[in-house]
Amino acid sequence: MSENISVLGLGLMGTALAGSLLAAGHQVTVWNRTPAKAEPLLAKGAKQAATPEEAVAASPLVIVCLLDYPSVTATLAGARLEGRIIANLTTGRPAEARETAAWVAGRGGEYLDGGIMAVPQMIAQPGALILYSGSEPAFERYEAALAAMAEARFTGADPGLAPLLDLAMLTGMYGQIAGLLEAAALVRSAGYPLTDFVSSLLVPWLNAMAAQQPLWAGKMESGDHSTEVSNLEINRAGVENLVRAFYEQGVKPDLLLPLKAVIDQRTARGLGHEGLSGLVEELQP
Amino acid sequence: MSENISVLGLGLMGTALAGSLLAAGHQVTVWNRTPAKAEPLLAKGAKQAATPEEAVAASPLVIVCLLDYPSVTATLAGARLEGRIIANLTTGRPAEARETAAWVAGRGGEYLDGGIMAVPQMIAQPGALILYSGSEPAFERYEAALAAMAEARFTGADPGLAPLLDLAMLTGMYGQIAGLLEAAALVRSAGYPLTDFVSSLLVPWLNAMAAQQPLWAGKMESGDHSTEVSNLEINRAGVENLVRAFYEQGVKPDLLLPLKAVIDQRTARGLGHEGLSGLVEELQP
Repeated sequence: MSENISVLGLGLMGTALAGSLLAAGHQVTVWNRTPAKAEPLLAKGAKQAATPEEAVAASPLVIVCLLDYPSVTATLAGARLEGRIIANLTTGRPAEARETAAWVAGRGGEYLDGGIMAVPQMIAQPGALILYSGSEPAFERYEAALAAMAEARFTGADPGLAPLLDLAMLTGMYGQIAGLLEAAALVRSAGYPLTDFVSSLLVPWLNAMAAQQPLWAGKMESGDHSTEVSNLEINRAGVENLVRAFYEQGVKPDLLLPLKAVIDQRTARGLGHEGLSGLVEELQP
Repeated sequence: MSENISVLGLGLMGTALAGSLLAAGHQVTVWNRTPAKAEPLLAKGAKQAATPEEAVAASPLVIVCLLDYPSVTATLAGARLEGRIIANLTTGRPAEARETAAWVAGRGGEYLDGGIMAVPQMIAQPGALILYSGSEPAFERYEAALAAMAEARFTGADPGLAPLLDLAMLTGMYGQIAGLLEAAALVRSAGYPLTDFVSSLLVPWLNAMAAQQPLWAGKMESGDHSTEVSNLEINRAGVENLVRAFYEQGVKPDLLLPLKAVIDQRTARGLGHEGLSGLVEELQP
């Protein structure tokens, strides 16, 4: 079914999103502060709105992809939002999403927040994923159209959920990157070929370890942090040994030190018999 | 070919190693400080040595798996090592491996150090891996026999290499675990089902990100830290946003803070145009 959809914000991501909607046969109206950026999309059949107000008036579904959340409310400030669904795919924090949802609701609109797990080049390609949260009826009404941009997954009514899960995935990625950086520095200190180490040893090992994470998540959900493998006492000795090896090789173990501190803290509470999953409790006071 | 092999140290790991050698048809002589631990292996055809000296005398290849490196030299102190290959699979640091190699060489023995990438239950199963370093002729002479315990990979003549690569893999794992812990705490703070998040979102994402690591390793090897995706400036803003979201959700971002500090440090040097791979330079002063 062809829908009328407006897209506000034509950065690399907004342009990719609008392009995927045009390719799927939708009637797309675009707006951007610098109008010239719309030209490639106009050539593909998009209509250009002169103002955000005109863009919002043109379509019941308005996709917004701007620099930040303050830009979103500033851009929409003069538009009539009654009967409109605002799908805000701007990158931001859960608290900002909740505020913006309330702001849109106060103006009679429905709100969806979206977290894009893709770079612009991946839009409309397999593997691209957009997480949504907020109004479930709004999501269901436009689910098929949203799926033209990327796999569309609704996560819950709290508008902060999509950005929160997005940030949680980035968090997991940053942890993995920190581990890579420290491992790479250690391997370089011994003059061993790094690409060989990463390809043939580290990546298969990380994939095998990642496969255990759902089991850990189950322990965190149940609060039962017992373990049949390495408990915190054993990990404490292991990390201590690791850190000493870093210093002996002349490499800074800085990115690992807070994990050591949290293990020490949990062990000092007499919980050294628990597994590493128990450390999650130390992060939520 | 059936070989004469001695195994010193019958903890969980030593017992698993000796059992796998017996199952492969080798003549195995075992020694343990507490002799009773040998009983299950004797039932499978192992011979028991009364002393470490006797165990070393029984076989040209001596596999050692004790609590730590000081125990290794203490245990071998009275044994005649001439013409013997000591394959030390005890967990330790590169510096300790190098010292022990010199100590064994000083007594006329050949030395292999090993890093076991497996828990005892995995020995002789697919996926188990032991990294070796030290004497390459010794490794080649016994490669087939060693492969009965786990996939055997020789990494180089520096005896410290096997423990170093072992520790580097653990380092990568600890980074990934730190990321999981922080991501999990964030997801729990929003009341979202954690196992669902980890299974359906985090693990596929981490696997996709891990697949990029060999490219990063190439950049670290060449020293060319240019990037076509997110540079350090963009990551600095992203991590700042992330840390703020953690505080807003009442979750401690402690495990991420040193990565933020290193990004800030590199950016302050005027290298904000580089990719994250450049951070490795900050860890090796």
